[in-house]
Amino acid sequence: MSRVNAPYLVFLGNEARPLMAKTGIGIVQWAPEHCVGQCRLSDDAINLGLEDLTPAEAAAKGARSLLIGIANVGGTISPAWRRVLVDALEAGLDVVAGMHERLKSDPELAALAEKKGRRLVDLRDPPEALPIGSGKARSGRRVLTVGTDCAVGKKYTALAIWKELRRRGQHADFCATGQTGVLISGKGFAIDSVVSDFISGAAEYLSPASDPEHWSVIEGQGSIFHPAYAGVSLGLLHGSQPEAIVLCHEAGRERLGFFEDFPVPDLQLAIDRHLEAARLTSPDVRCAGISLNTSRKNETEARQLCEELADRLSVPVIDPIRIGAEPIVDALLSVPAGT
Amino acid sequence: MSRVNAPYLVFLGNEARPLMAKTGIGIVQWAPEHCVGQCRLSDDAINLGLEDLTPAEAAAKGARSLLIGIANVGGTISPAWRRVLVDALEAGLDVVAGMHERLKSDPELAALAEKKGRRLVDLRDPPEALPIGSGKARSGRRVLTVGTDCAVGKKYTALAIWKELRRRGQHADFCATGQTGVLISGKGFAIDSVVSDFISGAAEYLSPASDPEHWSVIEGQGSIFHPAYAGVSLGLLHGSQPEAIVLCHEAGRERLGFFEDFPVPDLQLAIDRHLEAARLTSPDVRCAGISLNTSRKNETEARQLCEELADRLSVPVIDPIRIGAEPIVDALLSVPAGT
Repeated sequence: MSRVNAPYLVFLGNEARPLMAKTGIGIVQWAPEHCVGQCRLSDDAINLGLEDLTPAEAAAKGARSLLIGIANVGGTISPAWRRVLVDALEAGLDVVAGMHERLKSDPELAALAEKKGRRLVDLRDPPEALPIGSGKARSGRRVLTVGTDCAVGKKYTALAIWKELRRRGQHADFCATGQTGVLISGKGFAIDSVVSDFISGAAEYLSPASDPEHWSVIEGQGSIFHPAYAGVSLGLLHGSQPEAIVLCHEAGRERLGFFEDFPVPDLQLAIDRHLEAARLTSPDVRCAGISLNTSRKNETEARQLCEELADRLSVPVIDPIRIGAEPIVDALLSVPAGT
Repeated sequence: MSRVNAPYLVFLGNEARPLMAKTGIGIVQWAPEHCVGQCRLSDDAINLGLEDLTPAEAAAKGARSLLIGIANVGGTISPAWRRVLVDALEAGLDVVAGMHERLKSDPELAALAEKKGRRLVDLRDPPEALPIGSGKARSGRRVLTVGTDCAVGKKYTALAIWKELRRRGQHADFCATGQTGVLISGKGFAIDSVVSDFISGAAEYLSPASDPEHWSVIEGQGSIFHPAYAGVSLGLLHGSQPEAIVLCHEAGRERLGFFEDFPVPDLQLAIDRHLEAARLTSPDVRCAGISLNTSRKNETEARQLCEELADRLSVPVIDPIRIGAEPIVDALLSVPAGT
């Protein structure tokens, strides 16, 4: 089932912005055992705390894939990366990427990979012949993380909920919908790569019918309030058919990342509109809580914020790093299966 | 600029359901001068009132393309159609289709087309390298038709508004977002064929910045209340950045077509939610009226319905066939450009 050969050499280029290195940061957080080292084009690039290695050095230490851990807006292969990608293939590594521009579509890389017997793995590739969404009710328990913006912690929160459900002995799957999630779980695909007529069908495919007690914890994408990505988010919400949503938000963020003309929506309005839209395919959907990214606040402020918000909105509020997912998993499990 | 060689032989297969023959019906309604005849596999198939011709007979009468005027759910090429498609290429016609499955991806058809020097035209193909949505304000006047369901008259209404604007001497373009619209206007592409990350970017591309007085009349798709297609509809709404929307609805339809488990939304709620979502990129957006498809009602009922609804919701209500687009164009022009 795994689409990727671990362990990885994580490539970071010259990227200094954490938002653009989500894949690299995520894989180190959630699957550090799969990371042999990092490869950076300069000291300005983000430092994941891994050993700096060339592709040849990483191969000697057992790495099997070079993983492009950064993204461009637009999702293209930067010319500046080419030398390292070629070196990786020459050193016997696969190259793994999650960009819109496919590695396989680059004739030079494709020819070299074939010559060396290595794989170019495009994590975004969806399966062929996806169905359109049916909207038909299906069995199993599903929770979806949704957000007030991109890059507020939807993947992290879903992973934290999934791990906590498993710790409590629940049957639970993490359903990846983006490239980093696919790397961590070894399955799924980037839902924003699907032809748009099939978005909700793809979401149905990624969180299929299951045993009534089984949890599918679905990684959300984008925001229904985002001028570029709302279509993906709404299709994912409808197709996921969640019995519960968890709203993810970054404390203190007032404008959308990279889209400064647009405000982050009010939290109560965001809950209301998500629930209203989700009711189309899941009439009894509820909000199981809010996941607050408080990384820009100190510990005291962070806990105070969570408490105030929980009082004001009458739902559990966590920071998944500082508090953990327990209060939200309590809320999820307080409702028995099939009710 | 034209993507297609007219005139057409319209192919209808065995399709008896008007909803599945929207393309064939639309091209005869809006561009009858481009239609030489129809080709049907049985007498049960829908009759567009054109002369029944084989591909060879149509070619002799001057047809330049066989146009597949029907659709399957899922958008595949039916094996039952193959004989006629081959005959068309043999007779020297291009073959034009708007399905998800591309004509060009069929090796037999591709080889025959190359041998005969004919074109296989896939109307859904979007341009390469579309941008993601920017949400940035742009000049020009834009009106978008939206709907309570698929197949309620969004294309028809947009065409009627466009023609009426032109009749009054306004500069206006019809912006096609589906295959039939592309056939009528000779430009555009099917927005639901775009990779979902680029939906709103595609909408921005299809209705670009223009002179402040110029109207882009944008064909809507699907419905934001539809379990399969809402993502496309929301992305199109955000990317279109309309100063006005026109809500299209079929009088008497209570359940979604082909999705009988789902109710058609309340009209006032539909207006409210569309305006709220559209405000993200177009803060002063207004509803310019309702376009009611009253084809299942008699003339008296139809006019009564329009009047009652106009009273109740305080917007102009038309049936674009029985009443025409004048009241909505009045409403559009009652607001000067740039306000």
